[in-house]
Amino acid sequence: MAGLKEALENIIDVNREAGVKARERLDSLTKPPGSLAVLEEIAVKLAEIQGKPIPEYLDKKAVLVMAGDHGVVEEGVSAFPQEVTLQMVLNFLNGGAAINILSEQAGAEVFVTDIGVKGDILGHPNLKNMKVRQGTRNITKGPAMTMEETIQAVESGIEIAYEKAREGVNMVATGEMGIGNTTSSSAVLAALSDYSVEEVTGRGTGINKDGLKRKQEVIRKALQVNKPDPKKPLEVLQKVGGLEIAALTGVILGSASKRIPVVIDGFISSSAALAACCLKEETCRYVFASHLSQEIGHKLILEQMGLKPILFLNMRLGEGTGAVLTFNLMDAAVKIIREMSTFEEAGVAKK
Amino acid sequence: MAGLKEALENIIDVNREAGVKARERLDSLTKPPGSLAVLEEIAVKLAEIQGKPIPEYLDKKAVLVMAGDHGVVEEGVSAFPQEVTLQMVLNFLNGGAAINILSEQAGAEVFVTDIGVKGDILGHPNLKNMKVRQGTRNITKGPAMTMEETIQAVESGIEIAYEKAREGVNMVATGEMGIGNTTSSSAVLAALSDYSVEEVTGRGTGINKDGLKRKQEVIRKALQVNKPDPKKPLEVLQKVGGLEIAALTGVILGSASKRIPVVIDGFISSSAALAACCLKEETCRYVFASHLSQEIGHKLILEQMGLKPILFLNMRLGEGTGAVLTFNLMDAAVKIIREMSTFEEAGVAKK
Repeated sequence: MAGLKEALENIIDVNREAGVKARERLDSLTKPPGSLAVLEEIAVKLAEIQGKPIPEYLDKKAVLVMAGDHGVVEEGVSAFPQEVTLQMVLNFLNGGAAINILSEQAGAEVFVTDIGVKGDILGHPNLKNMKVRQGTRNITKGPAMTMEETIQAVESGIEIAYEKAREGVNMVATGEMGIGNTTSSSAVLAALSDYSVEEVTGRGTGINKDGLKRKQEVIRKALQVNKPDPKKPLEVLQKVGGLEIAALTGVILGSASKRIPVVIDGFISSSAALAACCLKEETCRYVFASHLSQEIGHKLILEQMGLKPILFLNMRLGEGTGAVLTFNLMDAAVKIIREMSTFEEAGVAKK
Repeated sequence: MAGLKEALENIIDVNREAGVKARERLDSLTKPPGSLAVLEEIAVKLAEIQGKPIPEYLDKKAVLVMAGDHGVVEEGVSAFPQEVTLQMVLNFLNGGAAINILSEQAGAEVFVTDIGVKGDILGHPNLKNMKVRQGTRNITKGPAMTMEETIQAVESGIEIAYEKAREGVNMVATGEMGIGNTTSSSAVLAALSDYSVEEVTGRGTGINKDGLKRKQEVIRKALQVNKPDPKKPLEVLQKVGGLEIAALTGVILGSASKRIPVVIDGFISSSAALAACCLKEETCRYVFASHLSQEIGHKLILEQMGLKPILFLNMRLGEGTGAVLTFNLMDAAVKIIREMSTFEEAGVAKK
């Protein structure tokens, strides 16, 4: 298994000089300086990550979807029953889910990993089986998993990122499936920040007002029972997180250690990214926040990492759908810096 | 030439029933209802426009770029010299501008029309020549053009939209080029609304604080000299608008009359759309606002039309660049409603 320690050591700062040169080139192109705004910022960040003033095309994109179940659903925190996790994994494998449709359009491949789904999915060649256990334990009664299981999940994510890097993937998106995982993500955010449970808890897949109140009580109880140390991100993942969240933390760390840009999706992916950035601050410089989700804690989690979302589509589906929708803008940014004419080439007068 | 009167008569309300059925289908797909938010709204609006519960793929997209010059630039309202309009048109024709790069990525074709560029561009087979005159007159000294010229520009736009409809285009984006055209657009917005000149005037391609003050004075003077009647959108275009703005008004009216969805770009395109919607209210139902530009009046103009922007990328380039970036999301919306599995098909449990 790929080592966590080694991955953390290999995450170094991005190449600022490449970014400065990218900015110079952008200012030489036939447009008012800075007028492509966010697209230009994306191009500069990609230059910094790749360490190349003119970034390479992102011609091999992978959506890494981690699936796992949550013992806490027995507390009635979700609008959907637990078996939906497994059913949706099958839907991913059969190509019928939103993430399949949007990835196909974006020219990205979807890779689904069972890191902790309750129940077994047999005979599906496209499913990577790295199951650590059959879902987490109920966090209102004790830790979600052992530290050994947590590290196994994180290192599984790192290993998947390394495998994709070896296959030539140069752009990663994170996705997930796990009924109950907004509850765990809210608990992770509350544990790693100064925000209250009320501030970080939203309606997930669509619970009502009473459901929201119950969810908040469940998270409060989970934090009281487990008392995760806010300075120890791995302990937070272990006590109140989830297997797919820990695996995504690994995917993000693994990608950053290989200097591969990684677009995170919504609230759950972002809680995994927050843990990754708490483990090693430099990780954030390889991470793009794709969209601002409807889930209320998402804004806070991105602020905590100093990341600005690119899209504001009010979505709340997960799976990686928001992340994949930004691929087009990433491609656009690269195409702009690589292919536009300069003022000199086009014979256009400057200001 | 295509008639304005006929186009206006042919703009009828969209098919609400198709929209209701589209919403039903979206709610049957394997995702929490409404969780794809803006993508779902796009799918419903496309269903209404096309009059089909499951909208057709937008497989033939055209970016219609209108170029024209503005006599008012002699008042020093722009950061760039007037000859840049013609130079940028050549850049479009040679494929080196941002709009070319982004359209190629979006699978859209760019069509450039000279509706009033100062100077002549000869021997370019890809340029459509519909020049009404060599730029508008200086609006601080009198009307930008005659009513005859205005109608000629609007009807040219309608004709181009009809031509594209005949060629099978089923998605249109508007773009423009015209040094000085944020000044005219601000004047159009001020004339058609209750906003003050200060509220609607921004920095265009990048003028400084003093330049902004001068620009505001110029617009104020243009309105005082011309006194356009706020109830007469054609008169507003004639007195303080521009040739490319009037042509875009025509493109939007022509597209709406053919039930073709049209994505408008930033501030200039939106001022053209505002005039179109004032001429016939139903037009707005065929219009998508692509992005919110940095230009301060843009937010107001969209509010005036009751349109919500899809992207918030802080751009201010024009040409159609923001509009083209939304094509990916339009395609995504259609792909979602057409291709996702239903709960029943996938065997996934509902709430």
